[in-house]
Parts: sequence; structure tokens; C-alpha cells
Amino acid sequence: MSLDLDRIRAAHERIRPHIHRTPVLTSERLDEASGASLFFKCENFQKIGAFKARGATNAVFALDDATAKRGVATHSSGNHGTALARAAKLRGIPAHIVMPSNSAKVKVRAVESYDASVVFCEPNQAAREVACADVIAKTGASLIHSFENEDVMAGQGTAAVELLEDVDVDVVICPIGGGGLLCGTAVAAKSMRPKIKVVAAEPANADDAAQSFRAGKRIVAEKKFTIADGLRTNVGERNFPIIQRYVDDIVTVSEDAIISAMRTIWETMKIIIEPSAAVPYAAIVESKIDISGKRLGIILTGGNVDLDALPWK
Amino acid sequence: MSLDLDRIRAAHERIRPHIHRTPVLTSERLDEASGASLFFKCENFQKIGAFKARGATNAVFALDDATAKRGVATHSSGNHGTALARAAKLRGIPAHIVMPSNSAKVKVRAVESYDASVVFCEPNQAAREVACADVIAKTGASLIHSFENEDVMAGQGTAAVELLEDVDVDVVICPIGGGGLLCGTAVAAKSMRPKIKVVAAEPANADDAAQSFRAGKRIVAEKKFTIADGLRTNVGERNFPIIQRYVDDIVTVSEDAIISAMRTIWETMKIIIEPSAAVPYAAIVESKIDISGKRLGIILTGGNVDLDALPWK
Repeated sequence: MSLDLDRIRAAHERIRPHIHRTPVLTSERLDEASGASLFFKCENFQKIGAFKARGATNAVFALDDATAKRGVATHSSGNHGTALARAAKLRGIPAHIVMPSNSAKVKVRAVESYDASVVFCEPNQAAREVACADVIAKTGASLIHSFENEDVMAGQGTAAVELLEDVDVDVVICPIGGGGLLCGTAVAAKSMRPKIKVVAAEPANADDAAQSFRAGKRIVAEKKFTIADGLRTNVGERNFPIIQRYVDDIVTVSEDAIISAMRTIWETMKIIIEPSAAVPYAAIVESKIDISGKRLGIILTGGNVDLDALPWK
Repeated sequence: MSLDLDRIRAAHERIRPHIHRTPVLTSERLDEASGASLFFKCENFQKIGAFKARGATNAVFALDDATAKRGVATHSSGNHGTALARAAKLRGIPAHIVMPSNSAKVKVRAVESYDASVVFCEPNQAAREVACADVIAKTGASLIHSFENEDVMAGQGTAAVELLEDVDVDVVICPIGGGGLLCGTAVAAKSMRPKIKVVAAEPANADDAAQSFRAGKRIVAEKKFTIADGLRTNVGERNFPIIQRYVDDIVTVSEDAIISAMRTIWETMKIIIEPSAAVPYAAIVESKIDISGKRLGIILTGGNVDLDALPWK
């Protein structure tokens, strides 16, 4: 079953009782500063503090009863793990979350607060996948990958559906890590408004998606450090073809611009967003997108930050 | 002309084109933690980042043309100065803002961004008043005091009007410094819903209002340091009788509770509030108010913080 608007709308119906319809906020100051009209879809106000609640909830509630009963599993050091733990608890099924042994305690506690079982592994991708496969072999749980899963992508696309129900925009911008949000957003946006532009923004220090987009083939690039830790992931194999088909451009931004954009949004809009969520506005600040006089929808992906380790310290 | 609901409603009509109708937010987590239903009136999203935009705008637009033309003046190291500068600019009249010479640069820049003239003085109350009287003598400007002014109080009361138009609550809680917000809030709330309780929350380190309330007479108390710098002021002479008549209780909170409440609201609600705005929630955390099963309206007064000097550093 492919990813299309019907599937995203079905996801929306399915998850509606379990998620917030988040507000779309505007800022006269940021409009003046950018010379455009900016509409911020505030997924930082979403359940678990990030859009990831949408995809995980859809994937969990899309399972048939017999499959669901065996539980769900994933590897995640971030918001997807918490989102999956919450969705499983809502459905009353077990969740197994594989997390790197060096995960921040606050993230481990968030997962555990939803009664999920946490499985620690060495902090590298291979160890995560092995540990996750092991849990699945032992329990019969279903893998709910954080982005290479069409139910997850469909769920993430519901943020764009709500945004476009609320406001009319010329361009939608969202960050890209693995591509789950971008795929859902692009399919939803292009299907609802064929003339809309869909642009993804990525840290220059983790620019595999931008490289892949230019090369026309998926490139697994080496990553440098980025403060936008949610976006370090390589673009998914299942995600890339959808991105090639539906996305107009992928632009990259500097670390300084991410930190500055994050701070500007905190100070001007009085809302807390995480570094990854600041990446689209950073692209505007760095003039990476043609926005003059346009109406832009920006998905603010999440608001989970460690207040003891702010990047401008 | 006394402070009553008609005057507050007239203020609301007057300032409506110039202010935001701010949202009322809720949080399931904070409801669970407190055992009550909390409704947060988000004046951190107000113009200039604080409720002070309401009172200053009302006072400026209530002036007759001849008086207005001579300008307005005040002494303020905080949000009222910015709010008055903005209101004067909107009306196209001069504003003179007396600020202590040690004011944070960001506050000076905020006032100057609205083209007001900043007059620096020694950082003490007497010097502020002398400098302000001097400016007024020279220019013929009208003093718009930050709280001892009934047009200011009426303007501040419009936040409670909006809150009670949006939700039904048993108790309204707001912080108290000079008492401008509290007077407007109490008169609006008691007039709209006679059975409502109005409670003020004050830092224990600046508890002159609580002391005065208990003693039945206005006491000018010595202040210790409080992180809630907007509330260091003594309760106003014109404000105290109104507080005695309309307010049910004034409770005090510790510095630790203020910092912890501020951080909890940042982390849970993903919104930025200043320390003074956290004082009512601190009173809930410290069980200073009988809230069990009740519906509480809380005025989050502002969101202007220095991100380089957060109190949990």
C-alpha cells in the first residue's frame, strides 16, 4: 500500500483522539525581518513534545489485534522512542525501546514513564539494529521504524494536513533527517495543493539528503557534529524515492544559523523549540530559500531540549 | 472616576486594535500534578511580551488630543517602559522613559526601538522620581505611572475579561508587585463572577503586599533579593484600598519554588515565561492555595527573560 493523501487522511482519523491539533502561530516581527508571511505549525506543543507522536500513534493503531498483542519495538535515542512507548500504552500493548547506553537520563525516564521496557545497547547504529532484532526475535513484537515505515510517514503527514486546512501557503518547509516527516508532508502538501513548493532544510554538517537529492541517488555520507541531533540520521531507503518525486529542493544551513534561529524564535515568539526545529527558519535567515513576499508554512518539529545545556551557553 | 467593570470594558474596546487576544493554554500533565484544572492566560505572547502592553496602551489612548500631544513619561526598568514607548509610537506622540543607569542593554534597546527618548538616572527610587518629575516639568508630558493610575489598572484588567470570556473558573491567581494587574483583575473578575475567588501570589522575599493585607494597612517593607524582579515594587497607595476590597488572599512563595515553577512550565508547556510569571504556579506547587478539584485561571504575566542568565544555571 503506497503513501498517498487517502492514507494520510485515514491516519488523521485514526490518531485524532490521541493527539493535539496544534496551533499555527505567526509573528509580526519575524514577518518584518524576513519580508514574508510565516506560519509556524507548533508541533513543539504536540503530545510528547514533538510531531513523532503522530507517526508512532498511527503505526500502533494500524496494527491488527493479533499482531498488536505481541507488542512493538524500535531503536531510538530520541522522540520516536517516547512516542512509540506512549502509543503502545494507549493501546495497552508492550513496547520495547532500544536505546544507546549513553542516552540522556531525561530521555530514558520519558520512555519509562509510559511503562515501556528499555533495552540498552552500545552507542552505534549496528548495535542498535542487532539489539532491536534480538528483542523482536524473542517477543514477536513488530518493528516500528522511526521513518522507514509508511504508516509512520502517513502519521507525520497529518501535521501538514492540519497546517493547510488552517492557512493557505505558497511553500512548506520542514527539516529532514531520515525523511519520515518530509515524505508525509510532501505527499500531503502536493496532493492538497499541486502548485505548492515543498522544501526541506538540513544541517550542512549532516547533508546526506541534500547530496543525495543533487546526485539523484541515495548517498550515505559521513556526518560531522550537528547541534540538530534529531537530523543526524541518513535519509531512508524507502523515503528517498518519495522525496525525489515530491520534494522541490533540499537546502543546507550552518550550525551558527541553527543556534541563532533557535534563539530568535525563543526570544521573539516566547516558545521553546529544539535545535532541529530551528533548521527551516535558519534556512530563511541564511537566504537559502526564495521567500520574498511569499506565504510560508514552517513545521516546528519539537520542543524537547535540555535546559541545562543550551547551545548559546 | 473609579475603577469598575464598565471602565475595564471601555479599555478593552479602546486597546483592542493594538493588542493580541492571547490564548488560554492547558496542560494535562500539570493538571495531573496539581489535582486541579489549570487555565493559563498567556500574556507572555502579548505585544512587547507582557500584559503591560494593555495598561500602557489604554492610558495613552485615553488622553485627550491636546494633552496627548505633549507626550507621556514614566520611570520603569522593565516592561512598562517598553509598553509605554510602544503605545506612544502608535499614537504618534513623544515618550520619555526614565531608566536606571544599570538597566540591561536589551531593555534599553527595546524602549529605543519604539523611538522613545531614554533618560538615565541613578539606580534608586528617589532618583527615578526626581528625573521623571524633571522631564515632565520640561516637556509638559503626562506621567503614566506603571500601576498608580486607574487607566493603567483598567487596561491590565482586560486580560481577566478575556480569560473569563473564554473559560469558567473558580479562582483567578495573578502575581502582585505594585498592584496594577491585581486591581484590574480583581475588579473584572468579581464583577463578572461574584462568587469567584481572587488570590494574589508574591515572592516571600518581597512580601509587603501580603504583610499589608494581613495588617489591614499599607506597609512599606524592606525587600530582599528576588528572582521575580518585576515584583520587587511596593504595593501602590491607590492600589491597596482596591485590593483590600476585592482580593480574597495574598500568599507568598519561596525563591526555589519560583525557579522550579518557571522551569516546569518551560519544560512541560514549551513556553517561555519570566520568573514573575511563575509565581502563581509556585504557589500551587507549594500548596499555598486550596485548589483540589477546582478550576483555576492563572495569568502568565510575561515572557521577557535574558537567555544568557537563566536562574537554574
